[in-house]
Order: sequence, then structure tokens, then C-alpha cells
Amino acid sequence: MNLLFASTIEPAERWLPLLERALPRDRIFLEPRADIDVALVASPPPGTFGRLPQLKLVQSLWMGVEKLLEDPGLPRSVPFARMVDPGMVAAMSETVLAHVLDWHRHHWLYRLWQREKKWKRRGQFMAQDRTVGILGLGELGADAARKLLALGFRVCGWSRRPKRIAGVHGSTDFGEILGLSDALVCLLPLTAHTRGVLDAAAFARMRAGGCVVNVARGAHVVVPDLLAALDARHLAHAYLDVFEEEPLPAGSPLWSHPGVTVTPHTAALTEPRTAVPSIVENVERVRRGEAPLHLVDFAAGY
Amino acid sequence: MNLLFASTIEPAERWLPLLERALPRDRIFLEPRADIDVALVASPPPGTFGRLPQLKLVQSLWMGVEKLLEDPGLPRSVPFARMVDPGMVAAMSETVLAHVLDWHRHHWLYRLWQREKKWKRRGQFMAQDRTVGILGLGELGADAARKLLALGFRVCGWSRRPKRIAGVHGSTDFGEILGLSDALVCLLPLTAHTRGVLDAAAFARMRAGGCVVNVARGAHVVVPDLLAALDARHLAHAYLDVFEEEPLPAGSPLWSHPGVTVTPHTAALTEPRTAVPSIVENVERVRRGEAPLHLVDFAAGY
Repeated sequence: MNLLFASTIEPAERWLPLLERALPRDRIFLEPRADIDVALVASPPPGTFGRLPQLKLVQSLWMGVEKLLEDPGLPRSVPFARMVDPGMVAAMSETVLAHVLDWHRHHWLYRLWQREKKWKRRGQFMAQDRTVGILGLGELGADAARKLLALGFRVCGWSRRPKRIAGVHGSTDFGEILGLSDALVCLLPLTAHTRGVLDAAAFARMRAGGCVVNVARGAHVVVPDLLAALDARHLAHAYLDVFEEEPLPAGSPLWSHPGVTVTPHTAALTEPRTAVPSIVENVERVRRGEAPLHLVDFAAGY
Repeated sequence: MNLLFASTIEPAERWLPLLERALPRDRIFLEPRADIDVALVASPPPGTFGRLPQLKLVQSLWMGVEKLLEDPGLPRSVPFARMVDPGMVAAMSETVLAHVLDWHRHHWLYRLWQREKKWKRRGQFMAQDRTVGILGLGELGADAARKLLALGFRVCGWSRRPKRIAGVHGSTDFGEILGLSDALVCLLPLTAHTRGVLDAAAFARMRAGGCVVNVARGAHVVVPDLLAALDARHLAHAYLDVFEEEPLPAGSPLWSHPGVTVTPHTAALTEPRTAVPSIVENVERVRRGEAPLHLVDFAAGY
């Protein structure tokens, strides 16, 4: 089969050697051709899809697909698969644990006190005293939930469709999960339903002294409402990896707010070593005429 | 039996209600008496032990006992037990994971860049690319090792006596463990053998770009050597919770070094809720005439 690698962001040299080794029978191109069967895409050059008349699969190299869904050229008649990369899932859980533990062990506060050379202790909480609410219980949310549970945290989670994860109190009632949560971790896909979901009303329902970890998309958070909840000390800290405009503009108050940790959209990167086997699985499914895995639901938007 | 609670630091009101509920047959005193059977101590007032002629057990409320071992009044003929508190062990692992993940996900660097409003990414490592070396494979080291392994890190460890922990490359050869380690976590007891163990020679043997997490005792680290290794960029970051002089003096260069995170000896506090059952176990053993658990080896110093 013929594969196209099309990305204005992912460096081809990180992917091609691994792809060529894993798919020795296939040919991989960097420019569109009429005989391409599978397009591997992450922010592809404009007009890419119009030049691929025989396409059998669009395989995203990234987990988040909301940008690609806005591309008017994306063919709705061709199966479109999200990337589910075990390495990226593991990286995301590392980042979630790093931030939740930073808040739980008061490290965010000790850093502020370090600047003042202030030696002062705050009471210790046990993990069992804290409830972490996870918004989105897909592959990412489920893995983070299991790792938080293993450390002794109470974990609850919100999802659009009911999900069962052992030990996790799952609910489709957003307000219920907010009311139970000390820490809130946003791992939602960005859709019309989830845009702006973290607003003043949501923060007000959370338990006082908690934190927000947004590692999903910037548009999930209403930034002025977040800053107000921090300034009122209702929230202790916010860990933000994603922003409506990226790179985060120099004029943003988020850069210098003492209650905000900014990371440059690095919570979890697709890892070619672990993503290539997922690509191979879907290429083999297309070759055998079977349905690919992790297909995007165009109506749901993820 | 008669118990004495003697501490100039631990607040009695956090302990007494739990102790009284757990040991309803026994009497708990706050001042020495001749008929005390068990002394519960953490930095006791000077002269305490001289007033306890019938003592059958000295039970530390803390895991680290090196200060108490220096007390000339401590009777060498009475069994002396360290605290092994599951809540404190869990808290220590939380702190170790928080720091190792902070380093692994480059959060220490993104915080420096945030101050400059700099949006810049650093390449991602997978946990399997990183080796965490743990110095000390007792209760604390073993628990931290298991939790790091569960996240996919490679873990090795050094201990004076050979220890076996599934999945951990253990060794009694200090140099071997240093040479394998990206991150180094110090959980050693402070003894004549371990004082100053983290010096220039040790840092030089570590892999470049790593970090040091000291959550044991300040005297394990030779501070000028650590600062030199940071300034040379051989070490990326140091997370220090303990210092030779505490509170850390305002004049210490550690407070303001960009490569150092200072926390005020809060890596893990004894948790009365989980420590009291350990105390009860040892009190019951004394009552039955059995040997208490977790006895200190006076010759080894821990």
C-alpha cells in the first residue's frame, strides 16, 4: 500500500525510519499522490485531502482531532482514526500525577515561600483525604485514574456516556463530580458541549483549596473566571498546559500569576516508538479489509 | 500499663485522643513517673530517661532516630523501636514521585522559562529511558521503588546489606548504582558511614542531566559540591527537604539558587492516624512479653 506522511509540525525524520522498518512491504511518501491509500496526518498542509482520491483511511498522529475536524477538505466518507498511543497515554499520566502531587504535597506553596526565604510548614494531608475528579474517562482519564487510585487518592470522574472503572466513582452528572472534587483534571475532547466547561459556576462548586489541571484544550477554561477563583483563594493553584492562543501571548496575565503554572503544551507528546505499532495495526486492518480501530465519531466530534 | 508521651515538637493534642481510644486499658502521662513502662518519644525534654527506672520500651514517634541515639541519657539496656508508619511511608513515596516526575517532565525548567515568558519545548523522555537510583532500600526505599516501577521507570538501589525487591537492580556497590542513575533519591539513615555520601565524586559518577532528591538528612549532602555540580550543568536540579541546620539559615545560597527546590523538612510527617496502630502493636508485644518490632540496632546506628 501507499502511505502519505503529511504534517507541518511533526518532524518526518522522527517517524520515517520507524515506519519503514515496521511496514517493509509498503511505500511511504511525503507528497500527495493519486494512489495514496492511507494518510498519516497531524496539521497537514492545506489542500492535502483534495489530492488523495483513493484514500481508505485518515490516521491522525495526534489524539486530539478537533482542529482536523474543522478542515473543510477532510473527506467525511473516509474512516478517520484518532491516535491512541500507549506512550502518550503514559506520558499524560506522568504529567497528571506530577501536578496533582505538586498540589497535594504543597510544593506550589513551598516554592512561593522559598522566594521569600520563609521556612514554614503546612499540615500534611493523606491521599485518602483528597478526591481527584477527572473530566473525561477515555483512554487518558482511565489510565490517570488507575495510577491515582494506586497512590491512595479517592477518584471520581465525569463522562458523557456512563463508564465503569474499578474503584472510580463515575457519573454523567457534571455538578455532582464538581462537588466531590478537591483537584480537577481536565482530559476532555474539545467539542461544542465541552467548550468553556471550566467557568465560575464550575469552580464555585469545587471544594475549597483545590487545584485545576488543564491538559486538554485551552478553550475548556474561561481564563478570567479561573483568575478570579485563584484571587479569591477558593482555588489554591492552576496547572495549565494548553491555551486558546498558542504560544501563550506575552501579554497574558497567566504568565506571571503566582497561582498559575504554565507549561508549553508538553503534557504528553505522541511518541513515535509506541505510536508506530498503533499505525501498523490500522494499516494491516485496511489491508485485510477490516474496520480500523479508534475511529472518530463525526457527530460527537471526537 | 503506663505510657509516657514526651516530645518538645509533636503536639500532644494530635496524639492523645487517638492513643487513649486505641489503648483503653492503659494510662498515658505527659510527665515522667517512676512507674512508666513505655516511653513514646520525639525530641523528648532533656533528662526524661533518667526518671524512668522501670522502662520496658522506648518507642520513637519518628522514623529517623540519629538525634535520639546521641542522647547520653538513652538507656542502652532498654529496647528502642523506630516508628514505621504506613502513612508516613506513603507520604514519602508521594514526595519522591512528585520530585522525580517534576524533573522527568522538565517542570523545573518550564518554571524558569515561565518567569521569562518563554514558550519553548524540550524533548520528551519516556519513563523507560530513565533510571532512578534509590539510596537505602528499607521500608521507605522499597515503597518508592515499587511505585516508580509501576510508572515504567527503571529502578536501581544501593543498600548496606543485600536486599531483594522484584524489578529493582539492587547492589551493595555504591559506585555501580551512581553510574546507572539519572535521578538519585537519598533515603538513607544518617550514620558515620553515610554522612557526606553525596559529594563531588558521587555527582561526577552520575549520568549527566539528572537530579538529586534528598529527603533523608541534610548531612548526607556536601552542599558546596552539589552547587558546583549544578553550576556546571552536570546536574539539572536538586530537590532538598533537609539541611544540616534547620530552619535553613537566611544566608544559605540554597534558598535562591535557580537549580534548587527547598522544602521545609516536610517530605513526610508521621501521621498519628496510621502511626498509632504501630504503637499499639508494640505496646501489646511488651504486655505479652514478646520482642517489639522495628528495634534499632545500636551498633549500626538505625
